[in-house]
Amino acid sequence: MDTREKLVATAASLFQKEGVRATGLAQILTVSGTPKGSLYYYFPNGKAQLIEAAITYAGQHILEHVQRDLDRYKAPDAALAGQLESMATEMQEKGHLGGNSISLIALETGDDPELQAACSAVFTQLETLYIKKLTSAGIPPDRAQPLGQFIQASIEGAIILAATKDNPDLLRQTADQLTRLIKLALAA
Amino acid sequence: MDTREKLVATAASLFQKEGVRATGLAQILTVSGTPKGSLYYYFPNGKAQLIEAAITYAGQHILEHVQRDLDRYKAPDAALAGQLESMATEMQEKGHLGGNSISLIALETGDDPELQAACSAVFTQLETLYIKKLTSAGIPPDRAQPLGQFIQASIEGAIILAATKDNPDLLRQTADQLTRLIKLALAA
Repeated sequence: MDTREKLVATAASLFQKEGVRATGLAQILTVSGTPKGSLYYYFPNGKAQLIEAAITYAGQHILEHVQRDLDRYKAPDAALAGQLESMATEMQEKGHLGGNSISLIALETGDDPELQAACSAVFTQLETLYIKKLTSAGIPPDRAQPLGQFIQASIEGAIILAATKDNPDLLRQTADQLTRLIKLALAA
Repeated sequence: MDTREKLVATAASLFQKEGVRATGLAQILTVSGTPKGSLYYYFPNGKAQLIEAAITYAGQHILEHVQRDLDRYKAPDAALAGQLESMATEMQEKGHLGGNSISLIALETGDDPELQAACSAVFTQLETLYIKKLTSAGIPPDRAQPLGQFIQASIEGAIILAATKDNPDLLRQTADQLTRLIKLALAA
């Protein structure tokens, strides 16, 4: 990992878990073990530029993670149950879900159109993974599109609830409900 | 509205929309038009104490709002569609959804057990409203309980997506998907 990637990966992890306001640039330098000058060298426009790079980096990481989980089972309902089960297990092992969502960053940057666009792009890419999984099982696009969007939104909400209530079972219960919707769409 | 309520109402509104980190105590005093001493008088233990009061206050406001929307239609699917339609309309009129969710506060205070407990309490009260609406339509409690939790979680997620993507239709689409689940539960 080169210096720029070290900076961005550290920032992404801290921003996702603690938030962009709570994470100072000095903390990112300390945790990443990079010299002070590197921040200004790679991100001459300051923190907003680093936040944007961190959103894209975090998004790529989440997308790869979700894609891997979805690829494990052919049927979309089994694949989603597997994804949410692996998230619940991760929460039980690590004690947090910080790496799975950019919701905190999205909510904190509501007043910055460029950062909101970066977050929207990640959300849209995630939806697209779900939509593709649904259409690959024969669900027509006009049904798969809103369902894929809903799957993405309800997983974001489930992550918040599971984290706040410290209850990984809420992720598993989300899979149960989404399974019903997927079966309905498959039978239609 | 007395001075304490003015402080808490102002804090709640700013915390929900901008976040607890971005909102300074000086800003709360200015916006609420209250004297500096009142903050220390009513909240001697500082900002965390004010945040806890604001979570409870915001929660009460959201609960009353949701209850009013749910009461408008007897059928739970129609009631939820009405609630999400009124939220979408509010977003179109005001340009934001800040008053409808404490997700940002919940995510920002992940490291504070007392504030997480206050947020959990609000989330649980909201779930309870949905569960009651479902059971009042004849859905058995063992089915209504996880569905009510899921409704609450998916609405939190939909609020984040609608806000980030600046697209109120995502709230309306959420109602479509939840309607399918409610109809399934009613037919079971």
